[in-house]
Amino acid sequence: MRVGNKHYRTIWLKEDNPKIVQIIDQRPLPHKFVLEDLANTDEMAVAIKEMHLRGAGLIGAAAGYGMYLAGLESKQSTAQGLLDYLKEAGEKLKATRPTAVNLEWAVHRQLDAVQNAKSVEEINKILLDTAHAIANEDADYCKSIGENGVAIIEKISKAKNGDVVNILTHCNAGWLAFVDYGSATAPIYEAQKRGIKVHVWVDETRPRNQGARLTAWELGEQGVAHTVIADNVGGHLMQHGMVDMVIVGSDRTSRCGDVGNKIGTYLKAAAAKDNSIPFYAALPSSTIDWEICDGVKEIPIEERGSEEVKYIAGMHNGELKTVLLTPEKSAAANYSFDVTPSRLVTAIITERGVMDANEEAIIGLYPERQ
Amino acid sequence: MRVGNKHYRTIWLKEDNPKIVQIIDQRPLPHKFVLEDLANTDEMAVAIKEMHLRGAGLIGAAAGYGMYLAGLESKQSTAQGLLDYLKEAGEKLKATRPTAVNLEWAVHRQLDAVQNAKSVEEINKILLDTAHAIANEDADYCKSIGENGVAIIEKISKAKNGDVVNILTHCNAGWLAFVDYGSATAPIYEAQKRGIKVHVWVDETRPRNQGARLTAWELGEQGVAHTVIADNVGGHLMQHGMVDMVIVGSDRTSRCGDVGNKIGTYLKAAAAKDNSIPFYAALPSSTIDWEICDGVKEIPIEERGSEEVKYIAGMHNGELKTVLLTPEKSAAANYSFDVTPSRLVTAIITERGVMDANEEAIIGLYPERQ
Repeated sequence: MRVGNKHYRTIWLKEDNPKIVQIIDQRPLPHKFVLEDLANTDEMAVAIKEMHLRGAGLIGAAAGYGMYLAGLESKQSTAQGLLDYLKEAGEKLKATRPTAVNLEWAVHRQLDAVQNAKSVEEINKILLDTAHAIANEDADYCKSIGENGVAIIEKISKAKNGDVVNILTHCNAGWLAFVDYGSATAPIYEAQKRGIKVHVWVDETRPRNQGARLTAWELGEQGVAHTVIADNVGGHLMQHGMVDMVIVGSDRTSRCGDVGNKIGTYLKAAAAKDNSIPFYAALPSSTIDWEICDGVKEIPIEERGSEEVKYIAGMHNGELKTVLLTPEKSAAANYSFDVTPSRLVTAIITERGVMDANEEAIIGLYPERQ
Repeated sequence: MRVGNKHYRTIWLKEDNPKIVQIIDQRPLPHKFVLEDLANTDEMAVAIKEMHLRGAGLIGAAAGYGMYLAGLESKQSTAQGLLDYLKEAGEKLKATRPTAVNLEWAVHRQLDAVQNAKSVEEINKILLDTAHAIANEDADYCKSIGENGVAIIEKISKAKNGDVVNILTHCNAGWLAFVDYGSATAPIYEAQKRGIKVHVWVDETRPRNQGARLTAWELGEQGVAHTVIADNVGGHLMQHGMVDMVIVGSDRTSRCGDVGNKIGTYLKAAAAKDNSIPFYAALPSSTIDWEICDGVKEIPIEERGSEEVKYIAGMHNGELKTVLLTPEKSAAANYSFDVTPSRLVTAIITERGVMDANEEAIIGLYPERQ
């Protein structure tokens, strides 16, 4: 997508040195646009864990490239030695963020791809090809999500006689969370392209403010009308007819349609239900955990440090400053995700189409997962 | 309540100069404890509007003392002249915060009290007595709310065999929002006094963080176990059995039991319903708007400046600093309250008892309002 007048993806190989992976460091956004070089698995693991990059799809792509970096950094001279090294590197990458299923999925895709390779050179070539394939598929899938999801926005627009469609989103399931286009934002960008009038209510998404920082920034760069709101506001807007639909992404969705996503998503889904407003989750199928049915019970919920709740960073006189928000002595808890039960989900939008949030419909669209 | 080892109320006449009203300036809390002198109606209006003080009951008491200051500052030499002056001063005070019904109620109580007075001296004496009466009643009512509400906590504690009762609260309906004790916190403080084990989940309450700043601070000062959470977290906690009850305050409650309170309250009520967790509103009857039944339609919702969403203040190296959280160009909306429909409210706790959230039950406890 666009940053200023230039097209970017969120992850790529450095132009003059393909042994370096380059990313947009999302921490200083929206205040500063900074690129970061990652030269080995450890740097990639830190980038994922410390959220220099984040988001379901991008974490998967990062894990793919992380495995490629593991191949490059390894001193192993035999195929078997390298395969063992890669398994360890994969464990390191998988341990960074427990809720994101794409992480696990990408690591295993790399390990499966190389398992029968005969030489170090062949393994390294496969790792690179697979990393590119994961990234390209992610972008392609998001593009398809946009094309599949735009019909929903188009229908609401027609029902409103072309009046502005008000869409609420939570966290950042934008192109910054993927390789390109985004999941929740893809139908919005596609609607904009087709001339449908849209306006996005952007939940700021405490404690890390991915909405206020990232979604607001990327919508602004693409010229999409938007308004930042505190996470508390969505219910009031829904009660007063100011939200036509809710669309969010997902970090892990069960095969029965329970949607694990950024903490607070469930509150919006409950309010949407209470106001008969449709609630959609948009996600590439790589986000679906086919092993799990009851997402509320089975999706692991990451707990992060309490300092993310007690402190916040922002711009002060041109510099990023971190300020304390709470009494110094007060405890704080930081559950990063919650799970929206399928009964609150109107439909799930994937690269293959729009499906109801239940096992039959999901397997119907993905029969190979039977 | 306690600040360090000293007892405070939130508003009083200055010890060495009873023509000055003194308050705790709540803006620098929890980082600094600062008292502020208010010498006239304009200063009181600014203090209410700019939220040096806030909260349903305290706003009412402040309006009462604001009218007393109006009497003192007036240059009118006749009773009629002063009564006219007081009407104008009342309008000024009422215009500061549209959602808070206590404001209107306190201004009219003062105007009603003085309407038949015959001299400037008599009016000024009545204004002072009434201001004190409003403040004392507010404290007494909150104390009674505590005694009425503690039975609910006690019952849960017994059902859990004395295990910790986990209570979620939103915003600050603590003693800082009233003259003393608080409304939502009063049963909690009473439970603590009786040796019942409680733990409070404190919603930070964006955008102004009254939970993270004020509720956390006052619970800390009284030694009540508590954990600050982002506003997004409550639903997840409820899904996982980590919340036994929700208790909030109210800025305006309709005679049919719809509860106007800080933005985001409704989201917690919807989630509580979805998880069969009891949801209580605790309020002195001065908060009830007897003219209104359908609160969602009729309670006016204050909109404040977008800078409260885009910027936040906190401590940095011992100084209060304000930082920018969003892209500079992004719009932000700041609806300050929402209304929880009575169907989501388990019961309302007032100074007279615990009543169901419907017109019949409410009028049943307040038959004089028939």
